[in-house]
Amino acid sequence: MRSGTQLTQGLRLALDGGPAWTVEAVRQARYHVVSSDHLFAPDNPALLSGCPDAPLRTGERRLLVVDENVDALYGGRIREFFVVNGVAATILVLRADETVKQWDAVCRVVDAMNDFGIDRRREPVIAVGGGVLTDIVGFAASIYRRGTPYIRIPTTLIGLVDAGVGVKTGVNYSSGKNRLGTYAPATATFLDRSFLRSLDLRHISNGLAEILKMALIRSEKLFGLLETHGSAVRADRFQGTTDELAGAADAIIAESIHLMLEELQPNLWESSLERCVDYGHTFSPTVEMHALPELLHGEAVVLDMALTTALGTLRGDVGEADADRVYSVIRALGLPLWNDVLGDTTLLEHALQDTVRHRDGQQRLPLPLGIGGHRFVNDVAPAELREAARLLRGRAQALPSDTLAETLVHA
Amino acid sequence: MRSGTQLTQGLRLALDGGPAWTVEAVRQARYHVVSSDHLFAPDNPALLSGCPDAPLRTGERRLLVVDENVDALYGGRIREFFVVNGVAATILVLRADETVKQWDAVCRVVDAMNDFGIDRRREPVIAVGGGVLTDIVGFAASIYRRGTPYIRIPTTLIGLVDAGVGVKTGVNYSSGKNRLGTYAPATATFLDRSFLRSLDLRHISNGLAEILKMALIRSEKLFGLLETHGSAVRADRFQGTTDELAGAADAIIAESIHLMLEELQPNLWESSLERCVDYGHTFSPTVEMHALPELLHGEAVVLDMALTTALGTLRGDVGEADADRVYSVIRALGLPLWNDVLGDTTLLEHALQDTVRHRDGQQRLPLPLGIGGHRFVNDVAPAELREAARLLRGRAQALPSDTLAETLVHA
Ligand SMILES: NC(=O)c1ccc[n+]([C@@H]2O[C@H](COP(=O)([O-])OP(=O)(O)OC[C@H]3O[C@@H](n4cnc5c(N)ncnc54)[C@H](O)[C@@H]3O)[C@@H](O)[C@H]2O)c1
Ligand SMILES: NC(=O)c1ccc[n+]([C@@H]2O[C@H](COP(=O)([O-])OP(=O)(O)OC[C@H]3O[C@@H](n4cnc5c(N)ncnc54)[C@H](O)[C@@H]3O)[C@@H](O)[C@H]2O)c1
Repeated sequence: MRSGTQLTQGLRLALDGGPAWTVEAVRQARYHVVSSDHLFAPDNPALLSGCPDAPLRTGERRLLVVDENVDALYGGRIREFFVVNGVAATILVLRADETVKQWDAVCRVVDAMNDFGIDRRREPVIAVGGGVLTDIVGFAASIYRRGTPYIRIPTTLIGLVDAGVGVKTGVNYSSGKNRLGTYAPATATFLDRSFLRSLDLRHISNGLAEILKMALIRSEKLFGLLETHGSAVRADRFQGTTDELAGAADAIIAESIHLMLEELQPNLWESSLERCVDYGHTFSPTVEMHALPELLHGEAVVLDMALTTALGTLRGDVGEADADRVYSVIRALGLPLWNDVLGDTTLLEHALQDTVRHRDGQQRLPLPLGIGGHRFVNDVAPAELREAARLLRGRAQALPSDTLAETLVHA
Repeated sequence: MRSGTQLTQGLRLALDGGPAWTVEAVRQARYHVVSSDHLFAPDNPALLSGCPDAPLRTGERRLLVVDENVDALYGGRIREFFVVNGVAATILVLRADETVKQWDAVCRVVDAMNDFGIDRRREPVIAVGGGVLTDIVGFAASIYRRGTPYIRIPTTLIGLVDAGVGVKTGVNYSSGKNRLGTYAPATATFLDRSFLRSLDLRHISNGLAEILKMALIRSEKLFGLLETHGSAVRADRFQGTTDELAGAADAIIAESIHLMLEELQPNLWESSLERCVDYGHTFSPTVEMHALPELLHGEAVVLDMALTTALGTLRGDVGEADADRVYSVIRALGLPLWNDVLGDTTLLEHALQDTVRHRDGQQRLPLPLGIGGHRFVNDVAPAELREAARLLRGRAQALPSDTLAETLVHA
């Protein structure tokens, strides 16, 4: 383990003063992420035998929970797949957007599991939808009888590269985002890019923001792919309508997931607080809350990254030319480069304090080092934030705007 | 691990067909169980420094959740302890009986954690109460920000020897007992027998039923202690008012916990379905539900054990003399030996089918082997249950009744 902890197992008894026991045990977690396009094509064997830990056989039955919007678009196909393959599917259609990501939605899934009389050893629940849906179902499954297996089929780009491949589940509680949840890997996640064809472009951009995050702190190669192909792949919704677009879409998704899993695997339960995947997530929660209620998560993350790229320039860590490349890619991906909330230093300071509180008393802020690298710092000061915001605003005004992203976001 | 699984860690990528990843990681769990009487005596250092993983220092603050009945009896003492030791205690008093062991109670704890603004790295929640209270608080803590540490101070005998020393948390959901929950060890459990002085005798007996369970399947020595001292220790509520009673009370509790932890440690997440601690828990859920709604859990468990002891006699596994010793101890501990529901073979059959469903298609029934031993069987048949019930009823009528347990339970 990253922290260097020695794994131990056993039961120790001490007797001075009165008996005292120490119980130590080790638990193995394992999960699979499998790619296959057109998962619900009747003759695609991926869902049946693509994952050895989650076989699905003729004669069996499954409980599915499907995002309402996904069901409207793909429900017929999904049902047909199960009929053709001789599996009895019971489908719970669930509205799943951020406003209903609450305990009530968990109850609906639990009720369905109760009604189904699920066999928690042999009948994993199958979740089909965006990050909201898979987070809800993952949470419900993880607490049902203290853990029932589940399978994820993400249908958004965020789902494919982020929410669907990690181990976190959760729902919001009052004003707290993902305040309640668990670390509970799905037995398997099946990735099917073809769902993205119906996703609106703003949600494609939203997912590209998390991909850009991985590029900026981990991979100049991935950044290069985004710089060369990002705009076209976005417009094509990762459908690969030409060979070149197909190759680029595949490479961008695979590279992004691979980097993400490399980061997650040694720190699956977030015992280490220095996580470079937290890049873009220091100021974004505050930006998301205060600037625009309708701001998507990725849009807030990208504003955070733009600001901290400027911070990097001030510190001499990111050259001005590199910073401008980053800003141009942000624009090309249909994402915003500036929002007036970034000018509110008091707000940013509060965000920083909040981060410190959740990272055990230190900033542990991942900052970009060139393009594709990062380092952690603990000394970001308010004056520096003000300066970075000034710098970024200037560049945002100077750079040509390819897309309508900023105006869209403000609309 | 008991199952013989090889622990592996890492990230594997396969590429035939499309990329597929396998993520493997290992998580260490560790928790402590520390005995100390009069925990809240102002000069008792146990809560401050008794557990190295959960230090409590002057100037710090803590959130406590205390069972309403416990607060009425010990609230003054608890508050004084924190004042004297310079720790700011915020106390949530919670009604905690089986009927309120529901999601609403979890919300009350979550609200208190929100209001407290708990630092999930450094401020474990402290739960003081019976099994209901510690199960609720443990569940709330385990899902709050995907896991916040907590500390248990059990105040019932069930809490001391069972609910307080394992890793299970949970609440009921509609008619499902502990339907929602997690495996989440408390950082530390502090055992303080002195709380038992105010517990009513029926709840003392209830805890003794789980102790007797450990004796019957694991330890002739513990059985001997119960046979010799059980009745007196019960009447004394484990307070050790004479040296002999003190020695017996200490030995009974320590032995019982030790055996329990020996069973739990290699199977902390219940991956193995052959658990001898499930002894007494095959027919008891059904008995609990159908016979008498007011039957305490331990009373139902003891009826299950009496029935399966008779089953053991029929199979030649438990001699008649040994069986009578068991029945006499049950009586001496103030527990019931017979209830008419045991005569309803159809009901028992249903219970068995339910067990099979939860144990992956097999009975995996722990049955006693003499006194202190056990074996697992898969072939218990309805006719045999009928015969065992007949045998048990006869012995229950023949044996002198020391206590009013059965009539009490029927009242
Ligand atoms: N668990 C994690 O590690 C993790 C990581 C990142 C994000 N998340 C969570 O994910 C959520 C965001 O996920 P999201 O961006 O997927 O949002 P989402 O689930 O709300 O989906 C976005 C919208 O697209 C619709 N939709 C889904 N698939 C579609 C398709 N194929 N075609 C057309 N419409 C479709 C949905 O109904 C929804 O209206 C947040 O709640 C966030 O907290 C979790
Ligand atoms: N997590 C586990 O591994 C585990 C194991 C066994 C039982 N349990 C759970 O524990 C619960 C039963 O626990 P329990 O038997 O402690 O019941 P309980 O928590 O309901 O307590 C019994 C009664 O005694 C009162 N009380 C508590 N301490 C007292 C004291 N010192 N003096 C006077 N009154 C006191 C309580 O207010 C309550 O009315 C069940 O819900 C069961 O599911 C959990």
